[in-house]
Amino acid sequence: MEKLKKYVSVKDEDHFYHQGAVELLIFNFLLILTILTIWLFKTHRFRFLHETGGAMLYGLVMGLIIEYATKSSDVESGTVYECEKLKSGPSTLLINITNQVYEYQYKGQISHHNVNGHHGNAMLQKMTFDPSIFFNILLPPIIFHAGYSLKKRHFFRNLGSILTYAFLGTAISCLVIGLIMYGFVKAMVHIGQLKQWEFHFTDCLFFGSLMSATDPVTVLAIFHELHVDTDLYTLLFGESVLNDAVAIVLTHSISIYSPKENPNAFDAAAFFQSAGNFLGIFAGSFAMGSSYAVVTALISFMHLTKFTKLCEFPMLETGLFFLLSWSAFLSAEAAGLTGIVAVLFCGVTQAHYTYNNLSPDSKMRTKQLFEFMNFLAENVIFCYMGLALFTFQNHIFNPLFIFGAFVAVFVARASNIYPLSFLLNLGRKQKIPRNFQHMMMFSGLRGAIAFALAIRDTESQPKQMMFTTALLIVFFTVWVFGGGTTPMLTWLQIRVGVDPDEDLKAKAASQSASNLDKNTTKAESAWLFRIWYGFDHKYLKPILTHAGPPLTTTLPEWCNPVARLLTSPSAYGDPLKDGDTDYIINNDELTENYESSAHVAVPAQDSTGSIQATGKEDIQEGDLGLGGYKLQLQHTAGQPQMNSLA
Amino acid sequence: MEKLKKYVSVKDEDHFYHQGAVELLIFNFLLILTILTIWLFKTHRFRFLHETGGAMLYGLVMGLIIEYATKSSDVESGTVYECEKLKSGPSTLLINITNQVYEYQYKGQISHHNVNGHHGNAMLQKMTFDPSIFFNILLPPIIFHAGYSLKKRHFFRNLGSILTYAFLGTAISCLVIGLIMYGFVKAMVHIGQLKQWEFHFTDCLFFGSLMSATDPVTVLAIFHELHVDTDLYTLLFGESVLNDAVAIVLTHSISIYSPKENPNAFDAAAFFQSAGNFLGIFAGSFAMGSSYAVVTALISFMHLTKFTKLCEFPMLETGLFFLLSWSAFLSAEAAGLTGIVAVLFCGVTQAHYTYNNLSPDSKMRTKQLFEFMNFLAENVIFCYMGLALFTFQNHIFNPLFIFGAFVAVFVARASNIYPLSFLLNLGRKQKIPRNFQHMMMFSGLRGAIAFALAIRDTESQPKQMMFTTALLIVFFTVWVFGGGTTPMLTWLQIRVGVDPDEDLKAKAASQSASNLDKNTTKAESAWLFRIWYGFDHKYLKPILTHAGPPLTTTLPEWCNPVARLLTSPSAYGDPLKDGDTDYIINNDELTENYESSAHVAVPAQDSTGSIQATGKEDIQEGDLGLGGYKLQLQHTAGQPQMNSLA
Repeated sequence: MEKLKKYVSVKDEDHFYHQGAVELLIFNFLLILTILTIWLFKTHRFRFLHETGGAMLYGLVMGLIIEYATKSSDVESGTVYECEKLKSGPSTLLINITNQVYEYQYKGQISHHNVNGHHGNAMLQKMTFDPSIFFNILLPPIIFHAGYSLKKRHFFRNLGSILTYAFLGTAISCLVIGLIMYGFVKAMVHIGQLKQWEFHFTDCLFFGSLMSATDPVTVLAIFHELHVDTDLYTLLFGESVLNDAVAIVLTHSISIYSPKENPNAFDAAAFFQSAGNFLGIFAGSFAMGSSYAVVTALISFMHLTKFTKLCEFPMLETGLFFLLSWSAFLSAEAAGLTGIVAVLFCGVTQAHYTYNNLSPDSKMRTKQLFEFMNFLAENVIFCYMGLALFTFQNHIFNPLFIFGAFVAVFVARASNIYPLSFLLNLGRKQKIPRNFQHMMMFSGLRGAIAFALAIRDTESQPKQMMFTTALLIVFFTVWVFGGGTTPMLTWLQIRVGVDPDEDLKAKAASQSASNLDKNTTKAESAWLFRIWYGFDHKYLKPILTHAGPPLTTTLPEWCNPVARLLTSPSAYGDPLKDGDTDYIINNDELTENYESSAHVAVPAQDSTGSIQATGKEDIQEGDLGLGGYKLQLQHTAGQPQMNSLA
Repeated sequence: MEKLKKYVSVKDEDHFYHQGAVELLIFNFLLILTILTIWLFKTHRFRFLHETGGAMLYGLVMGLIIEYATKSSDVESGTVYECEKLKSGPSTLLINITNQVYEYQYKGQISHHNVNGHHGNAMLQKMTFDPSIFFNILLPPIIFHAGYSLKKRHFFRNLGSILTYAFLGTAISCLVIGLIMYGFVKAMVHIGQLKQWEFHFTDCLFFGSLMSATDPVTVLAIFHELHVDTDLYTLLFGESVLNDAVAIVLTHSISIYSPKENPNAFDAAAFFQSAGNFLGIFAGSFAMGSSYAVVTALISFMHLTKFTKLCEFPMLETGLFFLLSWSAFLSAEAAGLTGIVAVLFCGVTQAHYTYNNLSPDSKMRTKQLFEFMNFLAENVIFCYMGLALFTFQNHIFNPLFIFGAFVAVFVARASNIYPLSFLLNLGRKQKIPRNFQHMMMFSGLRGAIAFALAIRDTESQPKQMMFTTALLIVFFTVWVFGGGTTPMLTWLQIRVGVDPDEDLKAKAASQSASNLDKNTTKAESAWLFRIWYGFDHKYLKPILTHAGPPLTTTLPEWCNPVARLLTSPSAYGDPLKDGDTDYIINNDELTENYESSAHVAVPAQDSTGSIQATGKEDIQEGDLGLGGYKLQLQHTAGQPQMNSLA
């Protein structure tokens, strides 16, 4: 049984090739316009509209033009062929039409109510590209770049706070948005705007999790330009990077959470399954990402006798680095984990180990390559967001839902930042001041990740409503908050023009002077990081990089044959290469060597000048801390020196 | 009326995401293997198998594994749904199956005989990606890189010969292959292997044109490594770059050539239409490519009073450069021209003008970026060629056709190189020696372009037979000829370890000593290039770049206001920046300034040391020649010096 309706369309192979070129050309044109605008803004020091806002604006205008200037080519679209004999949609469909066989490829399932939403404007359909492109092509370079360019010293100094904001904060934000939205949905059902069965509490939580991914790219760009206080920058950057990862995994876990019976009731089994899922996926992705980076580090470090070192071929080195990092993403995706999380930790690990092994040429090449890819991908995403407002065919604008979402997003941000800052300040030596908290509250922009998560599924009506709302929130926050960053900084009297290195010294000095009594009582809470740092420094760094002490000195004596095999010849040849190699510590001494005192908080390069040889990144790893505590290996006179101040 | 057959397939959104990741992962894995192999080969100086050959080998093995290790997932595939009521295939098909609407996207038309060729192995189907990816994604960076890295000095020295080989040679090659293949096809029809109506003479010519695209990437890589004689290198490189462009446009023109009545008879009108088409497309693409490059040069050159120069933002500069170059490709495609040709000439023009305006940072960035993209794209293509032997579903191996094609390709190469070299040697002062001719004959490998042209259309049986044959010829030539390059060089006693600059001096000296009498009589034939060079140097270079004399000195006096507006301030400020700026020539003097003498053939940097400031490329533009004639602007003492030796 089949009902056929006529479907008019002109098509040939060549037409399709050209069509693809036209779409890409439109994007290129938008990007070129954006770049020219950035240039204009940079020369005139405009800060009221950031490049991302500009890209979005151009996208919007282009979307408007396409929507109204191009004519709908398929007159009778939205017709459905009914094939009741088929059980499911095949991946490829061969259709015989007037004795010619046409091949069709499965694209996706469509809800009945969306069928008429397809206007049949071929141009519009073409411009609305596959959401998987976001996740597989555009996001990975952005996230990798974030991990690769992480300023480790400042990041580790504030690690405790960053982890709190990222994990606890995102969970709070998700829950608060979910609850508020559930209230609004109930109200909407009450006044008859919505049917009860359409919107479950899990849907509200889903919306909460995707709206919890903050993306203060605009704010951070301005911070970077103005050299805003480093701690504030690091807190925001670290939070937003990790928070993306958390939000992505959280969204996935919530979408899996499916209580057996009543979808609105709480099902403990399903909840714990989702929670376990969250932890499993997060840990798995972390492991996948870091292991690829470790493999890269090992390959780039290899010093087999019959091989020229890889670093003599910068092109091969860069290629391998790029491909292995991308493979981390793809492997995680293929294994059902979260590629974005994997690629983030891959980036961090690459920067920590592999970067030290690369040739100077490759160091620059990889940095520039990922910087460039990040730049392009970011602008494409923001252009596309602008376009999507007009080219996406199934928008559902529900004023009450949108209003609710705005309220929810701000309340959630507030209940993330202020209570957590209060709690963190109880433990932090160097408090997060009020104006920093306000600035963090203000910087809760929503951007690429929220958009990408929302566009991933736009089949059902609740999801379409969410997508439309998410898009509007992105627009609003990027334009209003992004544009208001500079006035806000002035208004909150936040320091600008800060030199990161000077800043660290000054703060450490002032803080250790005023908090001498707390040093030893609080030092214990950093034990985890002390153990990790010791392990990393004594075993991982020597195995994976040319830096660090030779393994022969760090491993027990009976391991010497193995150690000698694994140690890079350069580790012996240049004992001063790493700042810490000139002094050997064993496990018992380790605790005494980690101290937070005014003396050691001065960056490592002041004591032994030779460590500059291993590059700036290496120096930055010299100190490592949790919250306000400085963990610093000392090496003043080649002898372990104990100066506990308590 | 509809005939339905069951089609079994399991599918969901997530599955599709992961599937994409797996395919990409396989490619990544192949590329990583290839890179590691290159590393191995480079350290051991293996030259019997080049990286491209290695990539192909890995692809082949992977294709074998996929073909035999993965099971066919769709059991009953190749079923066709008959919809007699539809007039043509719509671009999107909505199908209602058991009350769920599925969306299908138009992929292409399929011949009836191919229907059963679809094994239904989902993995295989996924790995055989869209041919448009070759043309729109993988080829442009390779071709652009070729244009951008063209060694202009040597290229222009041999321009006449290169153009002859590229245009006339490709036409000869196409015709010879077409004729030989037509003979074989006739023979095949005679012995009953083929039906007469399947294979027209135009099909043979089509095959001839696509097999005429030589791609001696392997040979050139080895030449580059061994520093083989520069003239030979330039002849081969120049020929292969332009020949690709010619072959692509030729293939397009032949596919358009459709005689009205008997397809085997000669139709003068259709022939001239095709010939006109060829010229139009070639010229149009050339214009499109160069104009985008000129726009880039203008933007990067802009010195508006209120604007910071673009070169102070290397990231924006690189981005703009990249996007405009890509737009050249896309615009040409969108306008129905040939994007590959546009992007080639865009690359050449970018190198000639824009490169001089870029900041040192961007110069490096753009070079490294395109080098990297070229490296990746090339290896992806060669891996894919290996894969295609097993994953392509509709191979037609016809031994006689394959044998014929091998014969035809070698005969065609011989009738391209030897007769044209003989003709060129009549005019060239510096002859192309016998061993060079043999080496050029030997270097006629077929590679990416031939493959991409063949895979573009594999619908009909003749096209499938061509594709299979082309693939085998690519395998054979890359492995056998690519691997045999080093022994062949030794056997033909071709000089290796040549320094390009020294070489040029030495040759010029010996040749002008022996051919003094010919200098003046032959110099006139270069009039076209002399005019172009003068125009370029006096007007285009000053308008588009920071190099060259100020326009105020080259334009007539009444143009001064305009000239002053267009001239870069740096052109006045640093009069010695360009090797030629210290002396002004007008049109009358121009002829006398172009001389081919032993004295001026010495590279420009010997006379005025200051020009090194403008970068190496700039120096290379100092001399410009046709065939064996050197055209050289003199600037010995800041005064035009006439030393005609005749």
